[in-house]
Amino acid sequence: MAQETIAILGGTGDQGLGLALRFARAGRPVAIGSRKVERAIEAAEQVRKQVPGAQVTGFDNAEAVAAAPIVILSVPFEHTAGTLKAVRERLREGQIVISMGVPLATAIGDGAVRMLGIWQGSCAELVAALVPKGVQVVSAFQNVSAHRLQHLDEPVECDVVVSGAKDPRERVMALCGLVPGLRAVDGGPLGNARIVESLTALLIGLNVRYEVSAGVGIRFTGLPQS
Amino acid sequence: MAQETIAILGGTGDQGLGLALRFARAGRPVAIGSRKVERAIEAAEQVRKQVPGAQVTGFDNAEAVAAAPIVILSVPFEHTAGTLKAVRERLREGQIVISMGVPLATAIGDGAVRMLGIWQGSCAELVAALVPKGVQVVSAFQNVSAHRLQHLDEPVECDVVVSGAKDPRERVMALCGLVPGLRAVDGGPLGNARIVESLTALLIGLNVRYEVSAGVGIRFTGLPQS
Repeated sequence: MAQETIAILGGTGDQGLGLALRFARAGRPVAIGSRKVERAIEAAEQVRKQVPGAQVTGFDNAEAVAAAPIVILSVPFEHTAGTLKAVRERLREGQIVISMGVPLATAIGDGAVRMLGIWQGSCAELVAALVPKGVQVVSAFQNVSAHRLQHLDEPVECDVVVSGAKDPRERVMALCGLVPGLRAVDGGPLGNARIVESLTALLIGLNVRYEVSAGVGIRFTGLPQS
Repeated sequence: MAQETIAILGGTGDQGLGLALRFARAGRPVAIGSRKVERAIEAAEQVRKQVPGAQVTGFDNAEAVAAAPIVILSVPFEHTAGTLKAVRERLREGQIVISMGVPLATAIGDGAVRMLGIWQGSCAELVAALVPKGVQVVSAFQNVSAHRLQHLDEPVECDVVVSGAKDPRERVMALCGLVPGLRAVDGGPLGNARIVESLTALLIGLNVRYEVSAGVGIRFTGLPQS
């Protein structure tokens, strides 16, 4: 069976590019989406330079959505709704949209160590409210450092809490296994994204207080060995 | 210098008793507080049985507050305000109150995997709003499993995020070093308790989904070695 393509909207940003590099390194076809197709094409070239033989293509966001069964939404939080509205007509039943956005207060000019309150509860639940019926939303990857993703020679020492309905959640958990060091943790229903997203603000504060430029991560202890 | 006594209000509950055992084991004098002094005296006896030579005394909550410069508030969340009001007159300037409560939805008969919204932002900030001026509130210990605390022969594999003003925060961080396996992490200002408290609901969900009766904990990766 051909490997499923992974689309990454906002794949030119630090974290999206990091995921593109990691999934490409794992041999997965990647569709990088951007508002400007030229920037997506550039990012795809950059991935191919770092991962020889990578199957990576640059698209505008809507074309990227059309190209893949799994779509990672990796745009700054304040562009979440706008991006979804721009690609909504290309989303189709059975697709999985992964929300990795975090409502940091930077969206309103305040600091990254504080959160905005989101009416729906979280960025992931906002996304779920905006996608067409039949598209499944899963929350994941919020707490993974862009810096660590981009350093391909080192494992990413971080757990990924994956929340959403059971079937799509399990498919996204399987994706985590493609990246050395990442461990998927079953985060239960999508509403738990409220907690997981806010953890990002705490981690950003730890990065500052402990001067960890590579980014602090999180691990859960006491889980059964898998 | 004589070791400072640690008072634990609600020290007859699972988590409070666990902390009493651990601090007693570390040689610290402990004042266990309860609404009913007989129950506190019983709990103190239980600690002395498990930790021979422990300096542990049972008090009613108000007397326990009077006995110690550091007071840990380990009552169920819904008793937070009531307990503080009952002991308020005994609190004095310079004391530190450690909030370890979590506004789980169990307080209103819903599940422990969901949180209540607290007007002040968190249990810790509610506590800060209720103590007399000059009493300092620090948030800590929410994510530490009672089961692991009580199993004295094993280290407690968990980081403790400590939030609050700098001086009292550092004093509480030092307390964490008394318990093998606990590592204090500088959680910045008290408002971050919002995030740390909500993590408890996520950990409770993980305990259920992964059937971990001893309790899942949390570790941060990438912090400088201390």
